Amino acid sequence: MTVNSALAAVVENQVLSCWGQLLRRRPDQLNAIHEADAELVPLPGGSQVLAVTSDTVAEEIALGLYEDPETMGWVAVAASLSDLAAVGADPLGLTLSVTLPGEAEDFQRRLARGIAGACDAAGTHVLGGDTNIGAHCSVTGTAVGLLPAGEALTRIGCRPGDWLFSSGPLGAGAALAAGKLLGGTWPEEAYRPTPRLCEGRALRGVASAVMDTSDGLVATLDQLARLNDVALCVDGPLERLLSLRVEAARRAMSLPAFPFLAGHHGEFELVFTVSAQRVDQLERRAATLGWTPLRLGVVEPGLGVQMCGADIDGARVRNLLERCDGDLRRYVAALCELSPRD
Amino acid sequence: MTVNSALAAVVENQVLSCWGQLLRRRPDQLNAIHEADAELVPLPGGSQVLAVTSDTVAEEIALGLYEDPETMGWVAVAASLSDLAAVGADPLGLTLSVTLPGEAEDFQRRLARGIAGACDAAGTHVLGGDTNIGAHCSVTGTAVGLLPAGEALTRIGCRPGDWLFSSGPLGAGAALAAGKLLGGTWPEEAYRPTPRLCEGRALRGVASAVMDTSDGLVATLDQLARLNDVALCVDGPLERLLSLRVEAARRAMSLPAFPFLAGHHGEFELVFTVSAQRVDQLERRAATLGWTPLRLGVVEPGLGVQMCGADIDGARVRNLLERCDGDLRRYVAALCELSPRD
Repeated sequence: MTVNSALAAVVENQVLSCWGQLLRRRPDQLNAIHEADAELVPLPGGSQVLAVTSDTVAEEIALGLYEDPETMGWVAVAASLSDLAAVGADPLGLTLSVTLPGEAEDFQRRLARGIAGACDAAGTHVLGGDTNIGAHCSVTGTAVGLLPAGEALTRIGCRPGDWLFSSGPLGAGAALAAGKLLGGTWPEEAYRPTPRLCEGRALRGVASAVMDTSDGLVATLDQLARLNDVALCVDGPLERLLSLRVEAARRAMSLPAFPFLAGHHGEFELVFTVSAQRVDQLERRAATLGWTPLRLGVVEPGLGVQMCGADIDGARVRNLLERCDGDLRRYVAALCELSPRD
Repeated sequence: MTVNSALAAVVENQVLSCWGQLLRRRPDQLNAIHEADAELVPLPGGSQVLAVTSDTVAEEIALGLYEDPETMGWVAVAASLSDLAAVGADPLGLTLSVTLPGEAEDFQRRLARGIAGACDAAGTHVLGGDTNIGAHCSVTGTAVGLLPAGEALTRIGCRPGDWLFSSGPLGAGAALAAGKLLGGTWPEEAYRPTPRLCEGRALRGVASAVMDTSDGLVATLDQLARLNDVALCVDGPLERLLSLRVEAARRAMSLPAFPFLAGHHGEFELVFTVSAQRVDQLERRAATLGWTPLRLGVVEPGLGVQMCGADIDGARVRNLLERCDGDLRRYVAALCELSPRD
C-alpha cells in the first residue's frame, strides 16, 4: 500500500487531494499537500521562510458547539496560530474575515474580546480583515509567520524507534462537545486553547515530525502514520493522557477515555516525534521553558495507530461523523463502541 | 470636520473603526485602519515589506449575483490580488478557505477552474487552504506579497493639483448586477476581472494615493476624498468612463451611466492620483506596459466627489443598499434618481 493510497482511505484527505489535482502549486513551495500544518514558501534572499495558514470556524458554530461569540473569536485565532506553531514559525500577525449576523454590535464586541484574548495569550496581533453580513456566523483566520530557512517543521520524517509525544494533556475539545451534547459539566469558557508557539519553536532541529491536534489525537496520529508509513503506538491506559479537568468530566459522564481522544474536535496541542538520540536535547529545551512534554509512546514498523495494545481503525474513526450524517449522539455512541479494551 | 468624522458618515467605515477600537494593532504595522488596501508589515532585515489581505465572497453569492461556481472562485482570487495590486506588491501566493455544499464534486471542480483561471491570469498560485461543508457557499481568499521597503502604496497622500486616474474603463461589476436583476444582456462569464498587478507595480514611486474599485468607483472616490480631506472631481460625461461592452449593455437597458459607476459591486480597477510633475513618468511607465490609464479628472481643495460639475452625496450612495434593506430593485431605482444632470 503506497502512502497515497493510505491517505485516500480518509474522506477529508480525498477532498484535499482533489484540490491538489485541480490547482497547480508554486514550484518552490517547500511542502506538498498534506505534508505540513502551514504552507511554507522561501522568501527572496534565501535566509527566511514564510509560513501562512487559513482556518475557518463555521461548522463548530453550525453544530452548536460554540454559542458564545468569545469562543468563536478565540478559536479562530488559536486554530491558525496553532498551525504556525506546528511548523515552528514566529507569528507576524493575522488577518480575519468575519461574517456577522446583522445589527450585531454586541456580538462583534464579544467576538473581538475572544480574538483579542487569544492574540494576547500568543503575543501577536490582528493586522486587518474583512467584515460581511450573513445569516450564519463564520470566522476565517489567516496567520502569517517567519522561520529561518532549513528549520521548518513538517509532518514528514518520523521513523521506527522515534519517541512519540504530545505538548500537553488532551481531551478538552471533545469534553466541550460532550458537555454540549450530554449536558456534562464542561462550561464553554473552559475551552480557550493556547497555541503552543514557544513549544513549536523549541522543536526546531529536534522533532522529526509535528502536527497539531486540531481534529483530535486519533486523527492526528492516523494522519502522521499514513504520511510516514509507520505505526504509532500509544503506551499505557488512555486516562493518563487526559487533563485533570477532562478526566473529572469524563468520570462524571461515565464515558470511556477513548472518545475524548478520538472525537473530531481537538485541543490544539502539538503531537511530535523525536529520535532517541535527541530526547536529551528535547528535555533540556523543555526545561528552559518550564514545559513538560507528555510521552505518548513510540514509533514502530508497520502502518497505523495502536492504543492499549490494539489496532485502532483510524479511517473508520475519521469517517465516522460523516457516516453518522452529522448526528452527534449516534457519533458519540459509535466512538464509545470503538474503544479498545485494556 | 476631521477626517475621522468624515469617515464615520459611512456605515461600513463605522463597523471597521469598531474593530479598530476593539483590537490592538501591531506597533510597527505601516498602515492604520482604512489607510491601505492590504496590511503592510516590515520584515526583519528592513529591506522588504509583507503585504497581506483577506476577502470573502459570500454576500454576492447570497444576493444571487454569482450563480456559476467558476465566477465565485475567480472573484475570490481576484479580490485579494487586487488589494495587493493597490499597494504595489508582488504576490507570493494565496490561501483559500472554502465552504462547499455537501456532495459537491462538480461544484468543487468548477470552483477550482475559476480559481485556477484567476491565478494563471495573475501568474500566481494557491499555496493551500481549508475546506468546510455548509449550507451557504463562501470563499475567503488571503493573498500574501512582498514589496521593497519604502515603496508601499497607500490610500493616503493625494493633494489638490494631483491628476486623478483609473487603470481602465469601468462599470463591469455593476453591469453584471444589473444583468442579473433586470434581465440585461450581460452574461456572468463576461465578469472575470483581472487584478492590475503590473500596473500597481508601475505605480510605485509615482502615485500619491491608490485604492481599488472593489466597491465601485463612487465608493472608492468617496473614501479617498474622506481619507485625504480633498475633493475629487471627475471631468466630462460619465459614459466615457464605461467599457464599450458596459456602454452597449447600458444603452440596451436604457439606464443612465451613474448607477454603473455607483453600484456597490465593482470591477477591481485601480483608482489613483499622480502629482502634476510625475504625470510624464506615469506615461513612460505605462507605455512600457502597453497600458493606457484613463484620466478621470483632478484633485481640488474641498471635501467630497464631483461628477458632471455636481456634488455627489457619497455617504448616501454608500449607505443606500442598507437603507433599501437589501432590496436590489429599490436600490437600482434609487441610484438612478441620484444621477447628476449634465
